[in-house]
Amino acid sequence: MKAYLGRRWRFASSHRLHAESLSASENASVYGKCNNPHGHGHNYTVEVLVGGEVDAVTGMVCDLVELDRFAQKHVLEAYDHQNLNTLDVFQNLVPTTENLCREIYRVFHEGFTAAKVERVRVEETSNNSFEYAGE
Amino acid sequence: MKAYLGRRWRFASSHRLHAESLSASENASVYGKCNNPHGHGHNYTVEVLVGGEVDAVTGMVCDLVELDRFAQKHVLEAYDHQNLNTLDVFQNLVPTTENLCREIYRVFHEGFTAAKVERVRVEETSNNSFEYAGE
Amino acid sequence: MKAYLGRRWRFASSHRLHAESLSASENASVYGKCNNPHGHGHNYTVEVLVGGEVDAVTGMVCDLVELDRFAQKHVLEAYDHQNLNTLDVFQNLVPTTENLCREIYRVFHEGFTAAKVERVRVEETSNNSFEYAGE
Amino acid sequence: MKAYLGRRWRFASSHRLHAESLSASENASVYGKCNNPHGHGHNYTVEVLVGGEVDAVTGMVCDLVELDRFAQKHVLEAYDHQNLNTLDVFQNLVPTTENLCREIYRVFHEGFTAAKVERVRVEETSNNSFEYAGE
Amino acid sequence: MKAYLGRRWRFASSHRLHAESLSASENASVYGKCNNPHGHGHNYTVEVLVGGEVDAVTGMVCDLVELDRFAQKHVLEAYDHQNLNTLDVFQNLVPTTENLCREIYRVFHEGFTAAKVERVRVEETSNNSFEYAGE
Amino acid sequence: MKAYLGRRWRFASSHRLHAESLSASENASVYGKCNNPHGHGHNYTVEVLVGGEVDAVTGMVCDLVELDRFAQKHVLEAYDHQNLNTLDVFQNLVPTTENLCREIYRVFHEGFTAAKVERVRVEETSNNSFEYAGE
Repeated sequence: MKAYLGRRWRFASSHRLHAESLSASENASVYGKCNNPHGHGHNYTVEVLVGGEVDAVTGMVCDLVELDRFAQKHVLEAYDHQNLNTLDVFQNLVPTTENLCREIYRVFHEGFTAAKVERVRVEETSNNSFEYAGE
Repeated sequence: MKAYLGRRWRFASSHRLHAESLSASENASVYGKCNNPHGHGHNYTVEVLVGGEVDAVTGMVCDLVELDRFAQKHVLEAYDHQNLNTLDVFQNLVPTTENLCREIYRVFHEGFTAAKVERVRVEETSNNSFEYAGE
Repeated sequence: MKAYLGRRWRFASSHRLHAESLSASENASVYGKCNNPHGHGHNYTVEVLVGGEVDAVTGMVCDLVELDRFAQKHVLEAYDHQNLNTLDVFQNLVPTTENLCREIYRVFHEGFTAAKVERVRVEETSNNSFEYAGE
Repeated sequence: MKAYLGRRWRFASSHRLHAESLSASENASVYGKCNNPHGHGHNYTVEVLVGGEVDAVTGMVCDLVELDRFAQKHVLEAYDHQNLNTLDVFQNLVPTTENLCREIYRVFHEGFTAAKVERVRVEETSNNSFEYAGE
Repeated sequence: MKAYLGRRWRFASSHRLHAESLSASENASVYGKCNNPHGHGHNYTVEVLVGGEVDAVTGMVCDLVELDRFAQKHVLEAYDHQNLNTLDVFQNLVPTTENLCREIYRVFHEGFTAAKVERVRVEETSNNSFEYAGE
Repeated sequence: MKAYLGRRWRFASSHRLHAESLSASENASVYGKCNNPHGHGHNYTVEVLVGGEVDAVTGMVCDLVELDRFAQKHVLEAYDHQNLNTLDVFQNLVPTTENLCREIYRVFHEGFTAAKVERVRVEETSNNSFEYAGE
């Protein structure tokens, strides 16, 4: 029997959307108000969906404490109360929520081994969400 | 790399569920209180999920401003503060949320070309939601 | 010791905002898209706040089952899946949410005696709410 | 045309996570604070997703009233305001939310025939959710 | 200038409503399904509202970190993943949410001195909330 | 008859909490991670509560369209997708949410005349909210 577990965490960050390879007017056109030079910010919600066999003895897909510890160390400590543009990973990558999703997926996919990481979903506002599933 | 973007909008409409080809008692039986002749209404939330390659330069699946403009013109202006039963599209189609989902999918699928429309989801109340994915 | 208990219920109704004593153009100006002749609708959430001494034996302000039964009979049966404009109480009263609040307050105030009705709050959408406290 | 309908219900239960085949220290290690001998509890939200052809006449996947009646009888009456550990189904099965999901899926899958049961999702808290889709 | 700060925390507990001084049938009548001998549980949300002068230098009513530390030590460690009926404070007090509110108010009122505790609000479910303001 | 209307809007901004008159270590101590030099951000929700007589003809406290237009011009255009620290009003005022509340209250109080501004509430995250009522 395979089940899925979705776990959510929240962090607050700022960012500015600006691509170095585009001109000022192209950046303004592509990103609109998100290109504002002083930046802006969001309360991000990230949900990681992991899947796996339900253990016959414990009745669990994986240990939530372990999942929380991984997220705390690799996601919350990296992003919470930070300006995304100043982080190493976004030096050559625009910190759109699409790219943030992909990066969080990569970190879980490479480092979290207790269950299969199926999908990462990031909500940027209550009206916007982004998903990446490794395709 | 393929990512997905979900965007939500809200509109307030009224409707009455009533099929012309059914008798009064069949309508009452099938639709219950939703068959009340004077109608009732809902705050609908519609979420469109679009998918596509994340652009290597912009880091985006598609332009949100463009998606919003399409929804404003083709969904919100059509449905917000309207009685669904009076609209052309529901003259021969009962305005259930299943049919509303299908119609919004059709409109996006035919007219929105900046990314692939994967799925339309409409929440009728906080306890009911409907999805259509073109199957 | 005085405590307060807030209880919420939901109903779905349609309405049209239109004042008989105003001209067509005045109605259009005052109510905007809410004056649309065919009506529109909402999922309303009503919260009644009651207050009273916490009973030393039971530890309760009042019996929730009794409060629910009152709301079911006097609010939900009256309004759920109805067109507010067709109801007796709104024959000479525009069914704005302000008036809906006042009417629900009146019904609780006159009929519910197990605790003091402090305030009625109605949410028309996730962004709009109205309150009446008997002032 | 195939559409999907998601319907949500809520119930409040208590449970204790404890596997008979594990030692006291193993239980403490696996379940942490959820192994507290006196139990704890949650407001669970269950969402059942059903899918099927949209009926050409009624415009519906299935009758919501029938779906609600089934859930009321087989889920809410079984679990609401109960201690999960005392129920027959959890005598030899740890009442984790993974196992709760599977059990609710089984009940719907075996007994609800008006539409295909695609997936059962249970939210244990606002940050935790579990899904089972019969795999 | 006086401002107010509301801060929310969540905990999951079980309880049984049962008054020692009432007979079995009285308990069943007063508490209904909440009197179930095996108990049930909730995800509680507690919000403490504190008020005070906004400091002219820091722009703050009080230090959130201090408020969180107090809540962690005196509320979350006391109640989270516990059976309320087993706790000292509820040995002679029915663990209704009214009494839980009063107890949390008392703890903050007596021990938290960085700002005035104005009100404690506890949500038992998404439809029920209770408040106590020291009256 | 006096009723109250609460209206909510959302904006996304970044800020850094740092008081010029404090030393680096004092700032670090007072603001913790909010003092991070590169800033961070939030999705802010602002709710303005206005009160007034319900007009006997229109059934309304005030015109929602007018209220929205005022908020759009004086709040959303000022703050949305901005870095609060770069704005004139926060040149000598730390952009805490307490001060943001007071400033939005001041703007409404001085400029919005169609109803009495009773209170401004700003939610910084789903767990934090601030209120100012002109005291």
